[in-house]
Amino acid sequence: MSILAVGSVALDTIKTPFGEARDIVGGSLTYFSLAASYFTNVNLVAVVGEDFDEQHMQVFAGRRIDLQGVERAPGKTFRWGGEYSYNLSSRATLFTELNVFEDFRPKLPEPYKQADIVFLGNMHPTLQLSVVEQVTSRRLVGMDSMNLWIETTPNELRAALKQVDILKIDDSEARQLSGEFNLRKAAAAIQEMGPQMLVATRGANGSMLFNGSSIFAVASYPLEDEVDPTGAGDSFAGGFFGYLAQKPSLDEATLRRAVIFGSVMGSFCVEDFGTRRLERLSFNEILDRYRRIKALTSFEDV
Amino acid sequence: MSILAVGSVALDTIKTPFGEARDIVGGSLTYFSLAASYFTNVNLVAVVGEDFDEQHMQVFAGRRIDLQGVERAPGKTFRWGGEYSYNLSSRATLFTELNVFEDFRPKLPEPYKQADIVFLGNMHPTLQLSVVEQVTSRRLVGMDSMNLWIETTPNELRAALKQVDILKIDDSEARQLSGEFNLRKAAAAIQEMGPQMLVATRGANGSMLFNGSSIFAVASYPLEDEVDPTGAGDSFAGGFFGYLAQKPSLDEATLRRAVIFGSVMGSFCVEDFGTRRLERLSFNEILDRYRRIKALTSFEDV
Repeated sequence: MSILAVGSVALDTIKTPFGEARDIVGGSLTYFSLAASYFTNVNLVAVVGEDFDEQHMQVFAGRRIDLQGVERAPGKTFRWGGEYSYNLSSRATLFTELNVFEDFRPKLPEPYKQADIVFLGNMHPTLQLSVVEQVTSRRLVGMDSMNLWIETTPNELRAALKQVDILKIDDSEARQLSGEFNLRKAAAAIQEMGPQMLVATRGANGSMLFNGSSIFAVASYPLEDEVDPTGAGDSFAGGFFGYLAQKPSLDEATLRRAVIFGSVMGSFCVEDFGTRRLERLSFNEILDRYRRIKALTSFEDV
Repeated sequence: MSILAVGSVALDTIKTPFGEARDIVGGSLTYFSLAASYFTNVNLVAVVGEDFDEQHMQVFAGRRIDLQGVERAPGKTFRWGGEYSYNLSSRATLFTELNVFEDFRPKLPEPYKQADIVFLGNMHPTLQLSVVEQVTSRRLVGMDSMNLWIETTPNELRAALKQVDILKIDDSEARQLSGEFNLRKAAAAIQEMGPQMLVATRGANGSMLFNGSSIFAVASYPLEDEVDPTGAGDSFAGGFFGYLAQKPSLDEATLRRAVIFGSVMGSFCVEDFGTRRLERLSFNEILDRYRRIKALTSFEDV
């Protein structure tokens, strides 16, 4: 069982009230694949520039991450900078330099074309669609989207959504995409566009799963020390799809467990700068946090 | 088992995108007592003006609400007007006329002085303290507070908090009262001020219970049709303390069930204007929604 994951690898500059980090390896696909690799094999398709050196590459080393599909292109790596407010509840983008990501045209290595789960990371929906078209067999297509594509390429996004089984989306993006403020109505409208399943993340406010007419809602793990929220949503997606990849059936109980593993990976991500916490996790810590979430959300029948 | 409940009864004018209601019976204590009366007997201490007629009083009739402690004073009833934004996520206060509530000095009828649970509704903390002082025996003191008192009478609020066992508070108020943004840290700081237990409501984002070092977190019931959020937090408090009043023990399992009943009553409140939905509830509907919340938040161990 494996995940084919396509999206952005970047060099990030992050400022929070607790410190600053410059040119650290980031990008949504980096967080996704680190988180997913605790559960399954990840085949990575991405582009980096000439400035992405061996040391940067070490983030992926010694993990269940295959790098055959990582292309090195002439030019600089995608760079992003962001600064968080004093309580981490909002952030300003300092700069976005697409660089080699601007001309990225995902090409799947032959062995990647038979994928268990295809994960379309945040990028132009036409590129997302081109990935699906290159795959010859798959069980499931997952997608992450972003307000940028909802605003700038709505038609292309609609075309890509038709190929998607599970959409991972932020609650505000779900509202924007559907034109509905109420999350249940928003989910129902998006389910009409293609994906039968939606997992809506709400940051510190928890997450929801819409699976056909069934709904699952869970609160976030209440962290005492939050350091850097960058990549938390991508880590959620990695835990969610990574857990699903190793399960033969996508029944409701399995999907709900996947949401909890997503929540676990998102919460760990926030505990340190960039990918640091994800890099030094053990699977026992992951299981332990799952059980803590179970304990702190359980209540008895009446 | 009974609750002694003290606070405000008002005549509200409410505008939402779905309609408008003028001079309907409101006030935090009205919502609290309607919700609590589905679980226990409520002894109401409040003041109304000469304009609060028999028809207004009908809201409380035929319920487990004792009105012996409702004083009729010369002048007009407390009036409040509010208008909600298009998606109900924010509201503007149109007017606040304290009227007879300004000179309210709660006087407990003799039979009220032995109370199982004392609920101190949102009012000046010195009045809250005067209620506790009149009570001769009690099992538990619950309090609701509000940003107004955190800002204007912090010392009086601190004095009142020392008498409180369970504080029901909005998450933003918890942050304001403690000076901590992180909710776990905020709760720990407030627990140092007196109440061993905190129930923090977060509107559509769920609620949390802090009981000593134990934490419980639950998502809100995802409503499809929200009509009017006025009184939802007070209805939560009514369900929470009402359920507790009829339970001999305040163990963790009981407290968690009380949070769910709070959440149930808050969610019903939002489904119609003012108190309308609370007035026409059946206990079977309440149990049914409890079970729905159980179903939509349950997941299996790993």
